[in-house]
Amino acid sequence: MPGLRGLFIPGPTNVPDRVRRAMDIPMEDQRAPDLPQFTLPLLEDVKKVFKCKTGQAFLFPASGTGGWEAALTNTLSPGDKVLAARFGQFSHLWIDMCIRLGLEVDVVDAPWGEGVPVDVFAQRLTADRAHKIKAVLVTHNETATGVTSDAAGVRRALDDAQHPALLFADGVSSIASIDFRMEDWRVDIAVAGSQKGFMLPAGLAILCVSPKALAAAASAQSRRCYFDFADMARANKDGYFPYTPPTHMFRALRASIDLLNEEGLDHVFARHHRLAEGVRKAVQAWGLKLCASEPRWQSDTVSAIFLPGPMGSRSVSASPRWRAASSVSAIWAISMN
Amino acid sequence: MPGLRGLFIPGPTNVPDRVRRAMDIPMEDQRAPDLPQFTLPLLEDVKKVFKCKTGQAFLFPASGTGGWEAALTNTLSPGDKVLAARFGQFSHLWIDMCIRLGLEVDVVDAPWGEGVPVDVFAQRLTADRAHKIKAVLVTHNETATGVTSDAAGVRRALDDAQHPALLFADGVSSIASIDFRMEDWRVDIAVAGSQKGFMLPAGLAILCVSPKALAAAASAQSRRCYFDFADMARANKDGYFPYTPPTHMFRALRASIDLLNEEGLDHVFARHHRLAEGVRKAVQAWGLKLCASEPRWQSDTVSAIFLPGPMGSRSVSASPRWRAASSVSAIWAISMN
Amino acid sequence: MPGLRGLFIPGPTNVPDRVRRAMDIPMEDQRAPDLPQFTLPLLEDVKKVFKCKTGQAFLFPASGTGGWEAALTNTLSPGDKVLAARFGQFSHLWIDMCIRLGLEVDVVDAPWGEGVPVDVFAQRLTADRAHKIKAVLVTHNETATGVTSDAAGVRRALDDAQHPALLFADGVSSIASIDFRMEDWRVDIAVAGSQKGFMLPAGLAILCVSPKALAAAASAQSRRCYFDFADMARANKDGYFPYTPPTHMFRALRASIDLLNEEGLDHVFARHHRLAEGVRKAVQAWGLKLCASEPRWQSDTVSAIFLPGPMGSRSVSASPRWRAASSVSAIWAISMN
Amino acid sequence: MPGLRGLFIPGPTNVPDRVRRAMDIPMEDQRAPDLPQFTLPLLEDVKKVFKCKTGQAFLFPASGTGGWEAALTNTLSPGDKVLAARFGQFSHLWIDMCIRLGLEVDVVDAPWGEGVPVDVFAQRLTADRAHKIKAVLVTHNETATGVTSDAAGVRRALDDAQHPALLFADGVSSIASIDFRMEDWRVDIAVAGSQKGFMLPAGLAILCVSPKALAAAASAQSRRCYFDFADMARANKDGYFPYTPPTHMFRALRASIDLLNEEGLDHVFARHHRLAEGVRKAVQAWGLKLCASEPRWQSDTVSAIFLPGPMGSRSVSASPRWRAASSVSAIWAISMN
Repeated sequence: MPGLRGLFIPGPTNVPDRVRRAMDIPMEDQRAPDLPQFTLPLLEDVKKVFKCKTGQAFLFPASGTGGWEAALTNTLSPGDKVLAARFGQFSHLWIDMCIRLGLEVDVVDAPWGEGVPVDVFAQRLTADRAHKIKAVLVTHNETATGVTSDAAGVRRALDDAQHPALLFADGVSSIASIDFRMEDWRVDIAVAGSQKGFMLPAGLAILCVSPKALAAAASAQSRRCYFDFADMARANKDGYFPYTPPTHMFRALRASIDLLNEEGLDHVFARHHRLAEGVRKAVQAWGLKLCASEPRWQSDTVSAIFLPGPMGSRSVSASPRWRAASSVSAIWAISMN
Repeated sequence: MPGLRGLFIPGPTNVPDRVRRAMDIPMEDQRAPDLPQFTLPLLEDVKKVFKCKTGQAFLFPASGTGGWEAALTNTLSPGDKVLAARFGQFSHLWIDMCIRLGLEVDVVDAPWGEGVPVDVFAQRLTADRAHKIKAVLVTHNETATGVTSDAAGVRRALDDAQHPALLFADGVSSIASIDFRMEDWRVDIAVAGSQKGFMLPAGLAILCVSPKALAAAASAQSRRCYFDFADMARANKDGYFPYTPPTHMFRALRASIDLLNEEGLDHVFARHHRLAEGVRKAVQAWGLKLCASEPRWQSDTVSAIFLPGPMGSRSVSASPRWRAASSVSAIWAISMN
Repeated sequence: MPGLRGLFIPGPTNVPDRVRRAMDIPMEDQRAPDLPQFTLPLLEDVKKVFKCKTGQAFLFPASGTGGWEAALTNTLSPGDKVLAARFGQFSHLWIDMCIRLGLEVDVVDAPWGEGVPVDVFAQRLTADRAHKIKAVLVTHNETATGVTSDAAGVRRALDDAQHPALLFADGVSSIASIDFRMEDWRVDIAVAGSQKGFMLPAGLAILCVSPKALAAAASAQSRRCYFDFADMARANKDGYFPYTPPTHMFRALRASIDLLNEEGLDHVFARHHRLAEGVRKAVQAWGLKLCASEPRWQSDTVSAIFLPGPMGSRSVSASPRWRAASSVSAIWAISMN
Repeated sequence: MPGLRGLFIPGPTNVPDRVRRAMDIPMEDQRAPDLPQFTLPLLEDVKKVFKCKTGQAFLFPASGTGGWEAALTNTLSPGDKVLAARFGQFSHLWIDMCIRLGLEVDVVDAPWGEGVPVDVFAQRLTADRAHKIKAVLVTHNETATGVTSDAAGVRRALDDAQHPALLFADGVSSIASIDFRMEDWRVDIAVAGSQKGFMLPAGLAILCVSPKALAAAASAQSRRCYFDFADMARANKDGYFPYTPPTHMFRALRASIDLLNEEGLDHVFARHHRLAEGVRKAVQAWGLKLCASEPRWQSDTVSAIFLPGPMGSRSVSASPRWRAASSVSAIWAISMN
């Protein structure tokens, strides 16, 4: 295929040349005496991208899905209740994981094209006097539908209900691209994947975890080993890892965070917004319709559109189904029938 | 640091230039229509390296440790009994994982410097008339001590005892470097890591799983999601993956398997043997002692040696401890006090 | 700068990923016994891109300018007369080089925006009964103005006049992108640069030389050493080079020629034509004007446009001057005042 | 071929990973407004490696041979006399070039295994009352024989004879690896190649030129264009180049000079000396003989040894002939018969 290959899908995103170069290195000794000089500041700088201050960053060799599993198994016990909304493929899959890991899920279904129904969450939390709900799950950016949810609103709902549940956010397709404020919103675990806003290849689950969530690990009965926060924290404290880490990905992450900081996170967010506005204007001009039903839901990283005609009707799976047409800050086609 | 940097540690190993180049690529669409043309033959060719015919290959974005967890959680239920020997840091860690995942472990301790005590295993299996033991764990190559165990012998012990337990092998530092025969030995799950004999960076757990082990998954009650064989198999069937795969690592794996096949697996094994013989002769000439106590235990990928004097006594942790001095087909220092 | 960086200038052009990877290699032994197995077919395949059959290909570590010098010094003697047209910056510079190398140049000035005036060449050649003109120079694609000349027409003019002069073509920005027929047109020396249609970085002058031009070298008195055809031919015969060659560039050239052949040269030309047509339509739609004054002059690799207003008037040098705005198969701005 | 590939030949040398990464970049606009911010300091830093203060650095897309040609054609006129010694293949080739470029060469033959005979040069210079000798050529490090000459001694000979001839040094295999002092020795042109001490691929001739040599260009009648100092200087003044430059090589050169400076030139020289000492001790221990006949001639970058037996007698060319066996700071075999 002639020419430069760029991806216009919802992820993985294109890896900048500087990041590619940063990971094109010989393998390193994972126990080198000077490795901590590199890893300790890196872990601190990951936190800044999440706007996390009091918590701790974790880097697991895994996909974002592994990050979800780490969040759930480290803080909850089988039988624990979680509150979650389903309004797209990824929020659906996270709920599915909860069930398979033995959790009880209070599922709030919302139309695909809308985000977390904060008012319904508020009712459920207020009604939950016994505090059976141990965690609230927010898919901050639903990649399947191009919808950004109001995570700050969910925090307010928790506060208004004086509810002690943990707040988990799936920021795989938002963090580092859309404003995300771990500390302000008191998110307890936020999950990102290397292959979206961090502009790396897939293979790294990037998490920030609040002290409250870390404390919850002490009593959480879910079985875990590979994704255990305590093992990782013990080794990370000195700048090392409990098993062979993908150090080339860490070098790439260093380059990616440097790129983000050089541009400035606010400028990065503004850039994604500007590009998304262009995409939305084009979609409108073409007479097409965004899946995100209202401006407040429109994601600045993914724009999903309904496909008219045969492309749409070719969809065969049940319930909303989608078809890749574009990328972060671009277009993503969805068809409902 | 001037010059070319080579690693002389027990892993990760050096990544050949051709493999590095193969992964230095733009990201790919994980749902591209032509991806299966690449992934399906790749999965088949992985099997050939394991000498696996009837089973199935799996590629998880994880370290080798994740591969162990996949093996255990997909086939066993909490409370199940497994038989395992402890004779080094990695066999120790696998046993530790079993315990944390709720399994009951029948631990056979052997001197560090020896491998799996096949005769003791034979006794335990023969004695287990009720077939309480559901799986037998073999650390095929114990990286910490440079010891290769007799996996074929364990298979014979199972057969002699007519015991139906599954046979699991940790081949992280042996597969693709030391003769390994999944089909002949009827190994049910063999685990390799990308960063050893496959000459890739860390980040990929590579497994082969027998039909018997896949069948065991149907009734295994251990909770799992990220490492679920069934999810992976369902997507793999068509050449895709259940979550964003590290396609650049797959491209590197393609290059690595091509390299192995061009040299010929037997020549690869012979090369490692020749290099290891050189290392062992040097160790002897220097008046040092290998940790592997007898020739039959000596690994062709890792040679661990006892460090004399202050280096040795600087070791402070309890029980055998080690200090990196070398690499696959090289030297690895160990000190016991 | 975020994002992928693409160049939209008249050259160098973007290097495809596969070519980049091909040159990202350790250095090679320039005298390795197996090097000829690589270099001999490479030199043959270079010829096919030029559609050269009976001649010989040369690879000099130099820019395209060095290729011009090689053409002139190997075949001509100081005082020799050459016929050349000036209709852009690059045809101007080639004439300037002739003068500095002691040649007498019969310069035919043509408007910038037109190509070689074949009819004037025909008159001069017919009038030159004494065959004083030793070589005719054709800038096949004038990068400064986006004009492609009629090299076949010049050959016909030579034939009609039964003139024995050598025919030289500067194909730096045409060869491998626009139809070029060394053998059909009996071009004696054609010069290309690595950084245009060959999609490599700058640093390699690529030439094809006819037997007639090689024979001319025997009596050519211009002093030369670095660019000497005979030295190069003597070493090339066995697949080697008279001085340290940039073997990494040869590996890149191999990849580039493979890319060209896989797409098919005719498809490559058609692609450039299609893209150029799009550019020309856009230029028209914008109300701008191409520098190429008639469709028959319009280059399929470079479209130079007149810049209106302040950008144009900012130009201060005498005669047509230009300003980079785009690339091969794209736009190139020119302003005349 | 398994494993890491290292070169053990007299050149090209191995390219460090950091340098490889630095050149693995998309093409750049050679006329970008910010290019001078990169190129102007680079040219200054090249001078520091040569220990050149008052002169000017030049980067030609060419091999080291092209650098020789630039030195000769920019400063001399056909018929000019130069003084040169022949004591190896490369000093021989430089003399050959002089002759082909129309210069008259006063050749001093010295045994292959010795360097420039400073006393003979002193006699010739003293005898040359009419100052017919316009330039003195010193092959500072003769790669073929592993001999380093006394460039400072030649400067003293010139001074003692109060001779105004220019002093040219071929430092292709010495500069950046062996102490070289352009300013102290008042060398007028020093030539290096990218593929030796600068640790880049072949393709860049790197020169430093004194003000005296630049002044000589005004009256030098040798024809030149591609290698013209004046054209290059005019464009370089503003940070640009007269023809498409290999910017990726400049980026690599930046990385290489950074590496040299981080280690410190004196440490680099000491490292080469230490490695060469090891090689020389090994050669002695093996009962072999260095081509360099006395310690004062022994090069710290190349150690050429006489090959005993059949390897030696297989040599068939006339006069000293050599066979590659090793690299910079290593071994290089030579056989004389």
